[in-house]
Formats: sequence, structure tokens, C-alpha cells
Amino acid sequence: MALSHEDRRWMAQALALSARARGSTAPNPRVGCVLVRGGVAVGSGLHHGAGTAHAEGTALDAAGAAARGATAYVTLEPCAHHGHTPPCADRLIAAGVTRVVAAIGDPDPRVDGKGFARLEKAGIQVQTGLLAREAERLNAVFLHHHRAGTPLVTLKAALSLDGQLSAACGESRWITGLTARRVAHRLRLDHDAILVGAGTVRRDDPRLSIRLDGDEETRLVAILSLSLELDLGARVFSRRDPDSVIVYTGPAGSAERARVLASVATVVRVGADERGLKLEEVLSDLGARGMYSVLVEGGGMTLHRFVSQGLAQRAALFHAPIALGAGGATPMLAGAAVSAPTAGWSLERDGVVALGRDQLTVGRWVPARSSGA
Amino acid sequence: MALSHEDRRWMAQALALSARARGSTAPNPRVGCVLVRGGVAVGSGLHHGAGTAHAEGTALDAAGAAARGATAYVTLEPCAHHGHTPPCADRLIAAGVTRVVAAIGDPDPRVDGKGFARLEKAGIQVQTGLLAREAERLNAVFLHHHRAGTPLVTLKAALSLDGQLSAACGESRWITGLTARRVAHRLRLDHDAILVGAGTVRRDDPRLSIRLDGDEETRLVAILSLSLELDLGARVFSRRDPDSVIVYTGPAGSAERARVLASVATVVRVGADERGLKLEEVLSDLGARGMYSVLVEGGGMTLHRFVSQGLAQRAALFHAPIALGAGGATPMLAGAAVSAPTAGWSLERDGVVALGRDQLTVGRWVPARSSGA
Repeated sequence: MALSHEDRRWMAQALALSARARGSTAPNPRVGCVLVRGGVAVGSGLHHGAGTAHAEGTALDAAGAAARGATAYVTLEPCAHHGHTPPCADRLIAAGVTRVVAAIGDPDPRVDGKGFARLEKAGIQVQTGLLAREAERLNAVFLHHHRAGTPLVTLKAALSLDGQLSAACGESRWITGLTARRVAHRLRLDHDAILVGAGTVRRDDPRLSIRLDGDEETRLVAILSLSLELDLGARVFSRRDPDSVIVYTGPAGSAERARVLASVATVVRVGADERGLKLEEVLSDLGARGMYSVLVEGGGMTLHRFVSQGLAQRAALFHAPIALGAGGATPMLAGAAVSAPTAGWSLERDGVVALGRDQLTVGRWVPARSSGA
Repeated sequence: MALSHEDRRWMAQALALSARARGSTAPNPRVGCVLVRGGVAVGSGLHHGAGTAHAEGTALDAAGAAARGATAYVTLEPCAHHGHTPPCADRLIAAGVTRVVAAIGDPDPRVDGKGFARLEKAGIQVQTGLLAREAERLNAVFLHHHRAGTPLVTLKAALSLDGQLSAACGESRWITGLTARRVAHRLRLDHDAILVGAGTVRRDDPRLSIRLDGDEETRLVAILSLSLELDLGARVFSRRDPDSVIVYTGPAGSAERARVLASVATVVRVGADERGLKLEEVLSDLGARGMYSVLVEGGGMTLHRFVSQGLAQRAALFHAPIALGAGGATPMLAGAAVSAPTAGWSLERDGVVALGRDQLTVGRWVPARSSGA
């Protein structure tokens, strides 16, 4: 049965529903479900996060006997495992649903095709791929984590119109205004971890906490430091919680310094090559620690390394309406330039928002675009 | 008589009218006029450019006898001199207008307060300053030319999100897409002259003409060259019109090279100091040649010199959604950075427009903003 305009409309409704979850559903994905029989919605539901009902369950409860012979539109493959709730695939089968249209499969190894297989085995028609792109965007962090085993990496920078992170002598306070800075704190709130290079810790001495409405919250902080030359008195260590600050170093990082740092941070050794610490190993370690998303906040060398090694998926760039000049300043990407504009790292914008006098561009890094377009 | 909400409304109408002139009114200003009696508009007019009727004249013709006792709302001081038309001040007096509300004075030395003086001498109440900011914007080029005696300077750059004009090895084709490049050509059309540094001519060999819809138009081209090391075969010289290309050089520019260049360009000597050619002298010379507006198109050193010396009034920045990296690239402002973000060159945005995948920011350079705002 080919997918129709009607199918598309119901899936759009399921997607819209899934986006209505209050706050974050992490580590669970956002899911929406609409049950349709005879062209009429007989039940719908969305998932609000771990420990709460699944979208399919809520929709089936609402539909009751009307679910028999219905089509279920779900934004993600129904689960096939027992968690806080019984497998959704089993519930759909039991309710007599005859067709399931899913936007995308669920890469969670406990599902990953098993949901679809169980439905098909029960004689239910399964179709996928409808509004897949939209569904991908909705759960980008969740999907990336399960597919790659590493966190989704977002590069964050506050910069001038001419691309500088700081003026001469490293002065970066404050390029952007209050509103942009508040949004930057909200951005930290949405991430599991914040990563910076050791140079940023030495130069700016940031707290790297989330300060909104008088409260202070923290996220896991990761610091890249080949040399381990970090001051124990740095603000980022003031939380005195060695579990919440990880300092990544290479094979050559001094054992003595590592021992001293252990009072304020967890020191993790990864490989290193001529480009510095092996960032893939850093990301794998963060992934193994359950980090689904990392906000890389600089400095320019660290941002350059992530983007040039193709290890960044997203960007949040706060452009202030000023120009600073290049000589003595720190550029956003402090490393070798590409050979030609067509080889540049291309950002597909998801949106541009005015924040006071500043402007926030959010988007996804994509393969280089072709010339002249 | 205090200016009222009603006055503001009529002035806004006069401003809106003035903006409706078809194409450019240069070298004349845009002017709108509304005549109001008893709360009703009895006549209105706008100026369409040199050789055509003035706004006040058209409004008075439309009003006829109804102008007696009316208030005239004009966006610019009425003229006091005989040009293609008799002085508007005299016509307003003769028509029996009893009050004139003008947004701003006209700095043209033939007017410059004489219009207001003539009206007041005839017993007409004159008030100014209403919606002055809006009126200033409408005639920014005209007003700047008459006040400063130099052209209004707009910096134009096509750059990456990280502020680079070119990738490694100077490659700048093409950072922005087709739509942005078309708009950049339209921008040239709106300017009297295009200025670049000699490095841009040597490296990019641009034609610096306007190519739209198959036609090729030209503007006066100004090239800054201390050394006069320019290739006679450069594309910019291919128009073979020495009057339309001016090469500015300093006291040390070789007389022999100047003689050779004379076949394709007009060589003008200005002063020089440790910062290079004295840009004030370049702008004065362009002003004396009747240039009201100059588009400075680069390269990075030239853009930096104009902005850091406070000689640029406007900017048009085409940001492409790519990042290039800094090492080996040319930054937008290739010169010393300011000491702190608060000392940065601040751009007051007039607008941000999406052009395909690129984004155009237009605005005015303003004194540095205060910190933390």
C-alpha cells in the first residue's frame, strides 16, 4: 500500500505531538503516536520521558476497542523490550492494529528492527520512511548517541561579525550582550557535558556552570590538556567534585600533575598524535559515561580541531554586531584554513534568531557544498 | 506651538511619499511634502530628481487656493535658491502657507538655513526636528556629502561565518552564492565609485564592473597603490578609459610607473604616513570629483584601514554559511585588533536579509557601545 497524502498528514500530527513533551525526555527519545480508523483519529499519545507511559500505550488506552483495524502512525519504531512498560509492539498486536506507519527505526540496540519484525510476524503491515528527515531532527541527540556510540557535538562560539572570539590580548568579555549570554547558559542546560581546551581555562578562568535566575547548576565538564598545566585554583575546579570534571590528557601528561589534579578532577588518558589528543577517544569515553550531547565552547584551536576532523554535528554561533580586527585577536577557528571556499565546512542553518543586538545562528555541519551554488 | 501626534502622522506621510521616488534622485535629495488645512491633506508631492518639480511645488499646485492658511510638512528644508525651479520658500510664502514643519535642515550650501530664514522673515512659523532620524536615513548619502564634503563610505565584504574573505592561498571564489553576488552588483549600481586596494587587483584581478541581465555598466573605480605596481593588463583597465579609473599613490610612487599607467588610468598623488596613503585626502579628492558615495570592496587591509580610522559610515556584509579556518586565510579586517570587545567597531544593523543560503547584514558604523549591554 503506497503512502498517501493522508498518511503524511497523520504522521505530521504524530510528529507535532511528540514535540509537545514538557522539557527533555532524555535519555529517552521523543515519540508521538496517532491511531486512525476510517479517516478519523481514535486515539493519540506522546512520551514524556523515562518512567512515564509510551506514546503508543497512551494512544491505545484512549482508543480502547476502536484500535481494532486501525493504522498506528508513530514517529519512531515501537519498542520490543520490557522496560518500565511492556513492549509497545506487543500492545499494538494485542489491540488489533492492522497497519503501522513509522517515520524511522529506533537504533537503540534493544529495539533496532526487532519492533518492526515482531509486528510483521503478527501479520501487521509495516511501512517506514515517512517524514523521516523531520523525525531525525526531532531526536538528533538520541539517534546520534545510539548510532555512533558517542555524544552529539555542538560547537558554541560568541564572536564578532569579523569572526573573532576575543580582541587583542585575549580579552573576550563581553562580545555578546546579556540576552545572548543567558541563552548560552540555557544551551548548557540542554547538554550533558561542556568541553573546553585547557587554554580557555587558563586564559578566561570560566566557571562553566549554568547560572540562570539566581540558581547555579552544573554539567559534566571535560577539559583537554596535553600538558596537564592547570591551576588547582581555577574556578572550574571550585565545585570540588572530581567526578564532575574530567581532564583528558595524552600519554605524555605528567604523572605527578595527574596525581595533584586528582583531588579536583578525574584524569583520563587517551591517545595523541600530531594533531593533539585523539578526539575520537575523548568522545568515546564521554559516550561510555552516558553523555548523549557535548557543547564544545572553545577556544579557537579546540573549535578548529573538532570541525576540521569532522567530529562536530551542530553549531550555535552568537554573532555580536561589532568588528574587532584580526591582528592579535583569536579567530573562531584557530587552525589551518581550507584550500578553497568550496572545501569549506558548510553549515546548514536551522534558524537565525535575534537576541537583543546579537544574532544566534544554529545549524548542522554538512559535507562541503558544490561551487557556484 | 508644540509638535503634536497629528504633526508626527503627517510628517510620516511626507517621509513615505519621498521614498516613493522612482529610482535614484541623486545628486538631489529625496523630498516629500504634504499640505494640511483643517486636519485634511489639501495637496502633496514628492521630488523625482534633478530637472523635475520639487515636492513643495507639486503639493502647492495640487492644493491651489486651499494652500492659504495651511501647514506644510516637508522632509527637508525648502530651498531658497533658483535652480531648475524657483525657490520653494518663495512659493510657500506666496501661497499663504502659515506654518512649515520640516524634519531636518538642508546642508547644501545654497540652502543651509536660508530657506528657514526666508520663511520666518515672511512671518511663517517654522518648526524642525520632527522624525529627524528617519529623514536623515532617507538622505544619508546626500546629507553626508554636503556636510563632510566627502563621499559616504560603505564597506562591502563577502565572508565566511568565521570572518574570512578567502581561504588559504587567497582563494575567494566563490564564498557566497549567485543571489548574493547579484545583490552585490546591484550595490555597485547604487554607488558612484568603487574602491579597492592594489592587492585585490593583483590577486583577484576583478573587472569591478556591474554585470546584471547581460548588460555591463561601469562606475568610477579607485585603486589605492603606494607602489604603483599594477599590471596594465589587469581586467579593471580593460575599459581603456583613463578618466574612469583613478589610481591613488603617495609621494614615493614611481614617476616612471605613473607615466605608463596614464594610458589606462588617472594617477593622483596624495600624502602618506606610516598607515599608508592618507585616506582623508583620497576621499576629499573623490568628493571634489562629485562622488557622493563610495563602495569599498577590499581587501582585508583596506577594509581595516577605513574602519579603524573611522572613515566608514556603512557596511554591507554578505555572510556565507561556511567556515574556512584562519591559518593562511585573509580575515575581513586584516590589521591590528582593538584591545577589548568594548572598544570594537560597532555596527548598528538596519536589516538582515536572507539571500539564498547567504545572509546580508546592512548597517551603520557607530561609536563603540558600552560594556555588558
